[in-house]
Amino acid sequence: MTYKCLVDRITQESVHKIKMLEQDCINIGVLGAGVVGSSVLEHYYQSRNLLSEAVGAPINLRFAVVRDLAKPRNVILPEGLLSTNMADVIEDPQINLVISLLGNEEAERSAITAAINQGKHVVTANKVVMAKHGPELFAIASQNGVDLLYEAAVGGGIQVVDNLICRYSPNRFRSVQGILNGTTNSILTRMSLDNMEYGAALSLAQKEGLAEPDPTNDVEGYDAAYKLAILASLAFKKGWVDPAQIYCEGISRIHPRDFKNADDMGYVIKLIGAASDTPKGIEAWVAPALLPKDHLLANVNGALNGILLQGDPIGDVQLAGPGAGGKPTAASIWSDVVKASKDIITGNVSTNHFSTEKATVLPFDESEHSNYVRLTIIDGFRRVENIGRIFSDNEVSINQILQLKNRKWLDEGVNMAEMAIDIDPSGEGNITKAILDLSQADYCQEIGSRFRILSS
Amino acid sequence: MTYKCLVDRITQESVHKIKMLEQDCINIGVLGAGVVGSSVLEHYYQSRNLLSEAVGAPINLRFAVVRDLAKPRNVILPEGLLSTNMADVIEDPQINLVISLLGNEEAERSAITAAINQGKHVVTANKVVMAKHGPELFAIASQNGVDLLYEAAVGGGIQVVDNLICRYSPNRFRSVQGILNGTTNSILTRMSLDNMEYGAALSLAQKEGLAEPDPTNDVEGYDAAYKLAILASLAFKKGWVDPAQIYCEGISRIHPRDFKNADDMGYVIKLIGAASDTPKGIEAWVAPALLPKDHLLANVNGALNGILLQGDPIGDVQLAGPGAGGKPTAASIWSDVVKASKDIITGNVSTNHFSTEKATVLPFDESEHSNYVRLTIIDGFRRVENIGRIFSDNEVSINQILQLKNRKWLDEGVNMAEMAIDIDPSGEGNITKAILDLSQADYCQEIGSRFRILSS
Repeated sequence: MTYKCLVDRITQESVHKIKMLEQDCINIGVLGAGVVGSSVLEHYYQSRNLLSEAVGAPINLRFAVVRDLAKPRNVILPEGLLSTNMADVIEDPQINLVISLLGNEEAERSAITAAINQGKHVVTANKVVMAKHGPELFAIASQNGVDLLYEAAVGGGIQVVDNLICRYSPNRFRSVQGILNGTTNSILTRMSLDNMEYGAALSLAQKEGLAEPDPTNDVEGYDAAYKLAILASLAFKKGWVDPAQIYCEGISRIHPRDFKNADDMGYVIKLIGAASDTPKGIEAWVAPALLPKDHLLANVNGALNGILLQGDPIGDVQLAGPGAGGKPTAASIWSDVVKASKDIITGNVSTNHFSTEKATVLPFDESEHSNYVRLTIIDGFRRVENIGRIFSDNEVSINQILQLKNRKWLDEGVNMAEMAIDIDPSGEGNITKAILDLSQADYCQEIGSRFRILSS
Repeated sequence: MTYKCLVDRITQESVHKIKMLEQDCINIGVLGAGVVGSSVLEHYYQSRNLLSEAVGAPINLRFAVVRDLAKPRNVILPEGLLSTNMADVIEDPQINLVISLLGNEEAERSAITAAINQGKHVVTANKVVMAKHGPELFAIASQNGVDLLYEAAVGGGIQVVDNLICRYSPNRFRSVQGILNGTTNSILTRMSLDNMEYGAALSLAQKEGLAEPDPTNDVEGYDAAYKLAILASLAFKKGWVDPAQIYCEGISRIHPRDFKNADDMGYVIKLIGAASDTPKGIEAWVAPALLPKDHLLANVNGALNGILLQGDPIGDVQLAGPGAGGKPTAASIWSDVVKASKDIITGNVSTNHFSTEKATVLPFDESEHSNYVRLTIIDGFRRVENIGRIFSDNEVSINQILQLKNRKWLDEGVNMAEMAIDIDPSGEGNITKAILDLSQADYCQEIGSRFRILSS
């Protein structure tokens, strides 16, 4: 930037600031008052002074748009705050900041677009909209000179998005690994520590309100994939990682015996979202994975989320905290409101954006990982030798093998045995081929599980 | 702030910006090129484009002041960069940002003061100077309208300082707990996992360059206390916590048997810095403590640091990463340089300050904690009953007690036994009195250890 450009920019900014500040406070509108929205409103009424201090100017909540005025809420709201009319927020010229928490993808996307087009700064928690439509929305935000912030879209209260953009900007990241979904982490923690079966742990999570009646989005890993897409887009600066390109496996096929085997081999099992920057492209997947017990994410239990970033020169940095819930998510939303409000005051625009260009995402089969495989075999002579040969023939080498006396049984007169195999880092394609070969051996009864293994 | 004030401020800022930007780049001077300084220089020469992009304007390193030009360094530097003359940085009107890494308290304090008085923004890693003299330096920085940033003073690459000031500003924190010193954490990890004695683990850390030849500052907890003082001053916003007021115990008295007892009772041992905001004042201490094995800091091993913040509405948030070392510390310094440079460009001043007023710090004896006590007794009839009575008489209740067969022995014909007691949360004063009473009992041979216990 030259001196001349900068002076021009400053003059423009001053005009912008004076325009924005013809009113003496930051006027906020909220769209949606579900779990998160109610916590956002609650914190405002409990801590308005704290929030105004953080901003450096008074803040004022003008309207909250809801579908149903009569719906009972946890928080007592002043008369006249609630409205059912979106235009009360979107078209109010006094409102300069919109908190958009509608949830539904299409409704949110169009509300965000409309608010931005009215010159309003926007804060949202919607990971689906940001992961899928981020590039398009960032372009509109840039045209309109407003902030579009979305800290709460990833990791509830953890605050990794803004850190990646601002504080971590002097670093190059090579990998991101995360426990990105609290529902599945709580189910897996129960399965691991309380020896529960998947179905029972899921029912319990549903009873507690941790899992939805239709849990697909969480248990199949889609929710984690949206978050991983955002993280990978921000961390590597190699373009927008389209969530549709992320390989995704859910947790429903994990058997209680897998937890036992993992434990015996020195691991815990977590649903992991992992991405890395490789010379061939971005690798990104969501799947159950075994983590060494001393891995920084191994102790992240229950509904917590955890994220491990590996970069240079920063090293390995881990963040953990509540991954969901009204209050922690509201904390992240208010952090974004503080940032956007400061930008309104100073005339700055925060470009918390990832590229509009699509990143090259490596096909999962072309990536390399350690794998864990559990199989049931008809026990007999030369089994270890034959299984070993199938792996060797596919250029796959074995790190640990577990065939224990207490995991052998008699089935209609046939000696059965379970084996757990920990495979050294190998091409996913090679391992798939080895497993296919193995499944065709006459002694192989079942390939029970196959998961990835992370290193410490 | 009223409309009029804001417009005045904007006009002033514009003048400031135009003045600062008569040159087309951010000119930086570095004071000191030890371990951290060398990494700061190395990252600049490896990643100048990345750093300029992060700033949004070109950055230019003008001079690095060192004591000895001839000293061999890890990084190849261009001719003319090094100087032995502080004035080359402090008095160069072109330099608008100084990275101060002198180390020595008095030298650093006076260099920071001089640079600020010349209108230069300052970034430092000096925890002693910031913890002890922060209030005075912040006042000078405010008078001169410059940033004084110090992310690298706490937790190496972890980045908690700026988060507390900016991202976490909408929250109220009630407690901060941290593993704040990598040297002692590495010693304790060895003692715990490899059954080493304190002396051997310390020698090994010294050989690896993790501990200083005189390890006092680390092993007595002073280093952690400076960092805790900064964290507590920022987190609670109740004034400046003077490090001199922090209760401090070192790690040299931890016995290998304490690790065994802790493990049996479900704990690990860490050197913890803990502060909390109580109605009576700030509680702040550094001491060895037992942590439940599922505590979020329990897996923070080796030279890592970890910090757990408990606040509302954010919940419990944990950050972990490399607590020291040239590269991670350099990452934090460059993050501050990016921030200060953006402020130079926009004419903003970041007030990353804690109050100049002193916080009320609660005398340690008036605080309440769970305690762990290890004692050696002459074994005999009614011992448990008598020990129990001494605690009850002092209004102290016992949570767990460990008196194991394998920790009994014969000493010159006398039956000796070791006991480990886990005390429910009680006043420190009461526990001290109970232990005093106990030490006066004829069967009590030795009070071996007394440490605090954190809850999950």
